[in-house]
Amino acid sequence: MNEFDVIRKFSGLLPPAPAEVLVPIGDDCAVLRLGDGTWVAASDMLVSGRHFKGWAAPADVGYKAVAVNVSDVAAMGGIPRFVLVSGAAPDPEMALGVFEGVAEACGAFGVYPLGGDTTRADALTVDVAILGELGAAPVLRSGARPGDLLAVTGELGASAAGLLALEEGREGFGRLKKRHLRPLPRTEAGRAAAGLGVGAMIDLSDGLASDVRHVCEASGVGCRVDLDLLPVAHDARELAASLGRDPALLAATGGEDYELLVSAPERVLRTLAETVDIPVTVVGEIAGSGIDFRRGGDPVDHLSGWDHFA
Amino acid sequence: MNEFDVIRKFSGLLPPAPAEVLVPIGDDCAVLRLGDGTWVAASDMLVSGRHFKGWAAPADVGYKAVAVNVSDVAAMGGIPRFVLVSGAAPDPEMALGVFEGVAEACGAFGVYPLGGDTTRADALTVDVAILGELGAAPVLRSGARPGDLLAVTGELGASAAGLLALEEGREGFGRLKKRHLRPLPRTEAGRAAAGLGVGAMIDLSDGLASDVRHVCEASGVGCRVDLDLLPVAHDARELAASLGRDPALLAATGGEDYELLVSAPERVLRTLAETVDIPVTVVGEIAGSGIDFRRGGDPVDHLSGWDHFA
Repeated sequence: MNEFDVIRKFSGLLPPAPAEVLVPIGDDCAVLRLGDGTWVAASDMLVSGRHFKGWAAPADVGYKAVAVNVSDVAAMGGIPRFVLVSGAAPDPEMALGVFEGVAEACGAFGVYPLGGDTTRADALTVDVAILGELGAAPVLRSGARPGDLLAVTGELGASAAGLLALEEGREGFGRLKKRHLRPLPRTEAGRAAAGLGVGAMIDLSDGLASDVRHVCEASGVGCRVDLDLLPVAHDARELAASLGRDPALLAATGGEDYELLVSAPERVLRTLAETVDIPVTVVGEIAGSGIDFRRGGDPVDHLSGWDHFA
Repeated sequence: MNEFDVIRKFSGLLPPAPAEVLVPIGDDCAVLRLGDGTWVAASDMLVSGRHFKGWAAPADVGYKAVAVNVSDVAAMGGIPRFVLVSGAAPDPEMALGVFEGVAEACGAFGVYPLGGDTTRADALTVDVAILGELGAAPVLRSGARPGDLLAVTGELGASAAGLLALEEGREGFGRLKKRHLRPLPRTEAGRAAAGLGVGAMIDLSDGLASDVRHVCEASGVGCRVDLDLLPVAHDARELAASLGRDPALLAATGGEDYELLVSAPERVLRTLAETVDIPVTVVGEIAGSGIDFRRGGDPVDHLSGWDHFA
């Protein structure tokens, strides 16, 4: 049993959703009709020893907990608005550090904290629940169609490389470390993609190898992804090479880039690329029935991303 | 620095609240205008070793995490509607146990889970964020006025006595143990109180001694509480006596009863008592400037409730 099995079994225990729930548990966010507005909601928890280690300051952890939730809203095409934050720490000073990072992220992403809880715990733990507002129809994981191309925003591998640099105690590589500690969710790109009516969207939290599978399973389609096309960050390439790691595999499996993976017809992706001020790179296409990773034309097997109970 | 200092300092770091936020962080829930409706929002986290020990099954923990959040909504006079649930556990089977308890509580309290996250952690940890809907003006902590009486719903001390029975490994006392493991939030009474326009309301989570202080500080008033008037549960009295503990002190400081403390003029409280099908017991009055606990007419000093970082 893994994380996804737990959530799936939980979903099976629930009564029918109330009429206001337009999209239940299972996508990046649930979608909810409240009065005359449409809202998205999600929560994400970070735990010391699992999602971060001693190299992350409490403020980094608080910041990141907000950022990854903002990214879930971005992946629906929503505008992040409100958060609730619970933080547990070994002492109140560390808890305050967490909340300082939360406040900083709230300022950076334009979200407002409605409430908070704090308590003592051996392991620093932060859970954030987020509410975002939708200006267009939500973009689900299930809308990928044969003939769509798959594209990613920005660059991949920076977060995984930053994590390696932190784990290995490497000097320098400050940009990569920062991308890991304080991710940059793609809210603008997500809204632009929703406005253009892209087919499917997900944020790259578990890693492209996992997340493309989530999209294909939800959409009932297969895909082909060319690892040679991945826009691997130049400094991530450099760090990976210095550690004898394959940059493209790191970028495909490392996770936590919080870029967006978008499935849409080619002309829609072209318009998206012209609209946003970050790269939009085609990395594959929706085709066939399996998940087919290729490199130099050859299949690459056994690629997988993050499993929260592995 | 304690829990309340952390939240207070956090509040000081926040930008001005958006116009939709009618009541910011600091009460049982924040109050939010969303479209044509008014909503309340809160979050509460439970951590193993801090809020419960091995005597609580994972399903109990999940159930309680929902119940205590429902209680926060009840204390505003709201109708609990939606939750987001994050659960961390040493293995996926325990995580699933938590979510089974969450599902059971959601059924019992009529709330629907919009989303969830789960991950591995050494300590079982559950955080629930809740959204409730308001049908009347929210009841805040700050509305207690001189001349109001203070009343509590139901009975006090059952949860603290149940905790003692669990900690001491006592046979029997099943009702008390259940009241501790699976609290019964007072949603109906909270709605009735809000409909009657009571002055102030809070749920008794930290214990009457602490929670009456929160109301008085928020309202800028003092109070006198008569410990002889507390409606201590009969079996809680029995257990306390058998352990040489003072039942009234246990009821005043034990916490986690999740009954409601209401401040209102006498006639309003009388109507409330006639409206709801649980006892409503006057335990004191708003008067003076300090927190004055009495017993047989004599002052009782140094009463305090739960501090999450103590």
